[in-house]
Amino acid sequence: MKFNIALLAGDGIGPEVINEAVKVSDAIAKKFNHEINWMPALTGACAIDAVGVPYPDETHEICMKADAVLFGAIGHPKYDNDPKATVRPEQGLLLMRKKLGLFANVRPTFTFPSLIDNSPLKKERIEGTDLIFLRELTGGIYFGEKGRKDDGETAYDTCTYTRAEVQRLAKKGFELAMTRTKKLCCVDKANVMETSRLWRETVQAMERDYPEVTVSYEFVDAVAMRLVQWPNSYDVLITENLFGDILTDEASVISGSMGLMPSASVGEHTSLYEPIHGSYPQATGLNIANPLATVLSAAMMFEDAFGLKAEAAAIRAVVNKSLEQGIVTEDLAAKDSKTYKTSEVGDWLVANL
Amino acid sequence: MKFNIALLAGDGIGPEVINEAVKVSDAIAKKFNHEINWMPALTGACAIDAVGVPYPDETHEICMKADAVLFGAIGHPKYDNDPKATVRPEQGLLLMRKKLGLFANVRPTFTFPSLIDNSPLKKERIEGTDLIFLRELTGGIYFGEKGRKDDGETAYDTCTYTRAEVQRLAKKGFELAMTRTKKLCCVDKANVMETSRLWRETVQAMERDYPEVTVSYEFVDAVAMRLVQWPNSYDVLITENLFGDILTDEASVISGSMGLMPSASVGEHTSLYEPIHGSYPQATGLNIANPLATVLSAAMMFEDAFGLKAEAAAIRAVVNKSLEQGIVTEDLAAKDSKTYKTSEVGDWLVANL
Ligand SMILES: CC(C)[C@H](C(=O)O)[C@@H](O)C(=O)O
Ligand SMILES: CC(C)[C@H](C(=O)O)[C@@H](O)C(=O)O
Repeated sequence: MKFNIALLAGDGIGPEVINEAVKVSDAIAKKFNHEINWMPALTGACAIDAVGVPYPDETHEICMKADAVLFGAIGHPKYDNDPKATVRPEQGLLLMRKKLGLFANVRPTFTFPSLIDNSPLKKERIEGTDLIFLRELTGGIYFGEKGRKDDGETAYDTCTYTRAEVQRLAKKGFELAMTRTKKLCCVDKANVMETSRLWRETVQAMERDYPEVTVSYEFVDAVAMRLVQWPNSYDVLITENLFGDILTDEASVISGSMGLMPSASVGEHTSLYEPIHGSYPQATGLNIANPLATVLSAAMMFEDAFGLKAEAAAIRAVVNKSLEQGIVTEDLAAKDSKTYKTSEVGDWLVANL
Repeated sequence: MKFNIALLAGDGIGPEVINEAVKVSDAIAKKFNHEINWMPALTGACAIDAVGVPYPDETHEICMKADAVLFGAIGHPKYDNDPKATVRPEQGLLLMRKKLGLFANVRPTFTFPSLIDNSPLKKERIEGTDLIFLRELTGGIYFGEKGRKDDGETAYDTCTYTRAEVQRLAKKGFELAMTRTKKLCCVDKANVMETSRLWRETVQAMERDYPEVTVSYEFVDAVAMRLVQWPNSYDVLITENLFGDILTDEASVISGSMGLMPSASVGEHTSLYEPIHGSYPQATGLNIANPLATVLSAAMMFEDAFGLKAEAAAIRAVVNKSLEQGIVTEDLAAKDSKTYKTSEVGDWLVANL
């Protein structure tokens, strides 16, 4: 098969980790007789520096033409802590999500047996954790009307959801639950928010179409607690944009494998695959960043965007092998053991595929 | 001294835990020569059952006359999971917060050495944790305009903040930081929300009035992560209502002492003291609920509302003694050791004051 993949390396360590994912993807393509046409494009701080906007039209066109988008990370400290900055890298991210219609952010949290001791949680709490959040990504307070009144003394943000938006996301949740343990948790704040009440009543009405799925409804504050107490009690969780932002990040640290977590953003036009970690500016150019989350995001891309299960399995297998053999960057290395550079890990993966 | 204390026992286990806090408070009053006039009043599901509304006017009048309010818990399962219920116990809570002007919810998270092994987190992660959230409690999306459009197909909630609201809460945060390690963390989502940008710029402008305080600004998603990774890296945190709801609950489970955490809601007219746990309906009437969070809330009341430090210290000392000696309810009891009833714990505290 032949694929066009938009390659958005972004800022900070983005280009370094993307580089390794490209090496591994090319090796897989060669092995399985596929052809990949990489289409690099600018986004984030590097796009602001180059052309003044964080998600240029040319980049959008490339993404729209692509069969999938592979994304690194964006963000640069020079744009932080300035509430009045008018152009920010994050705006590029939001614009991209909206323009590509990336409505469902798929965020798995699972454990690697060899890394379980890295977790801040006790082993017995975290063992067997294998959950997936579906975060709504193009609605809610992120995209509602916002602004100032009273000479800037009053600020407001609006959270809006339509029934159709909830249905679209919830449908993915029910379908995913059907392929797993048939447990679905709808996370909301229906005791306070009207949008949450719309979420809850919409999901309740969909239950009859999926009689095998057991649905629970939990408040976001309760989920924030139980994620730390009993993460392995969850399977598929669906939630709105802002709750998803907070809870998926919370979930990412419980496994001890945060540096390895991939994600997908499923869209109307195309889908995007990216590591969940940020641009880690302090490490830029040092060749020390862990590339595995990006490599595993490429595996998700092969499986979900192209339907190539064997290719994805081959990538996951070689990643597991590298972990078992300790071919890891400094963040994962056991005390006093050898650490490998970003590019060395990538080379090892390619050689051992 | 003589105090009028409004006593809002509420629902579920509320009356049982309140009962023990009253016993301990009365014993303290006797010992230190104070006089307490308890003024019981209805709130929550029991108020709906009795008079049709969850925060009756009579209750409000009693609270307004009181020097402090001691609160149990509210909520009853018959009102849950019904997004269309028109009267809900939680509405009483929100109305009470608004009418009493309870703008700052003070939520400490600390560890009890004897309970540290109950934490889902590893000991080395949690040791030394001693943080306080100040959650804004009368603004934000809880109280903004909300409703439906398009025949109910679109729902919206509005989050609003004024500069004055932010200043009032932040002032408390700076003042509290001055009495502790002079570290203040402002939690927001300034990369997305206009209200967060107002929060950040308002707090930034106040920094010059407190030159000794080191202020950090962190995004809510990052805080949700770091609370699990390094809770002891925080001291005082200030945040808006909804973020505070999620993060304070998350923080409450990390110490392993969730059943013991007290809280205060500081108001314009009077202040309210309550355990952070809920109404735990399944345990109602069984005399098994842990009364210590409510007893420690009474200690906060003696110290903060009445300025009586010795009285508060005496309560905390006897609570520590009960923990050390294992005079605890079943939730805290070591395996195979004797457990005590709610009222037995209270009796023991009174006898050992
Ligand atoms: C950078 C920021 C706008 C973004 C978000 O809040 O969605 C990020 O935290 C994420 O989760 O991808
Ligand atoms: C019951 C609910 C409305 C309330 C809130 O969200 O404020 C509760 O979760 C709390 O934190 O006191």
